[in-house]
Amino acid sequence: MKFSVTVTLKKDVLDPQGKVVENTLVNMGMNNLKSIRQGKHFEIEVDENDQKNAEKKVDEMCKKLLVNLIIEDYKINKI
Amino acid sequence: MKFSVTVTLKKDVLDPQGKVVENTLVNMGMNNLKSIRQGKHFEIEVDENDQKNAEKKVDEMCKKLLVNLIIEDYKINKI
Repeated sequence: MKFSVTVTLKKDVLDPQGKVVENTLVNMGMNNLKSIRQGKHFEIEVDENDQKNAEKKVDEMCKKLLVNLIIEDYKINKI
Repeated sequence: MKFSVTVTLKKDVLDPQGKVVENTLVNMGMNNLKSIRQGKHFEIEVDENDQKNAEKKVDEMCKKLLVNLIIEDYKINKI
C-alpha cells in the first residue's frame, strides 16, 4: 500500500529556502510570481493490507521522524 | 492563483537521502516499511487570472530552476 506525505512549514514560520528560490525566480524575470514556499514530499510503501492500519503506521512514522510538529504540518494521501 | 508542484526523483535514480530515512525507520522498529523515497514540494502563488497562462508560468519556473529534468520528474496541481 502506497502513500504520499506532504510536509509543509506552518503558515507563520519563515521559509528562508523558499525566499531564496523566490528571489532567484524574480531575478530571472518571473515578475508575476507572488509567493513560493518549499516543503518535503515522501512516497512511502507499507507492507500492510488493511488501509486503516497502514495509515496508522505512516502517521506514526511522520510523528516520530519525518515531521517536526512544532514548525511543520503534514498531510497523508493514499496513492 | 495557487499551484502545488511535486518534484520526485525518477524511478531508476538512487535516493540516498530516502535510504537513510528508511534505515532509520526500520531501526526504530517499523518492520513493515517496504520503501520510502524523498522529494520536494513547492507551493507557488502566481499573480495571473487565466489558468492556462498561470500554469504555463509555473511550468516555466519548474523547467528553468526548480526541477533537474535529467534526474527528476514533476507534477503541477492547481490548489
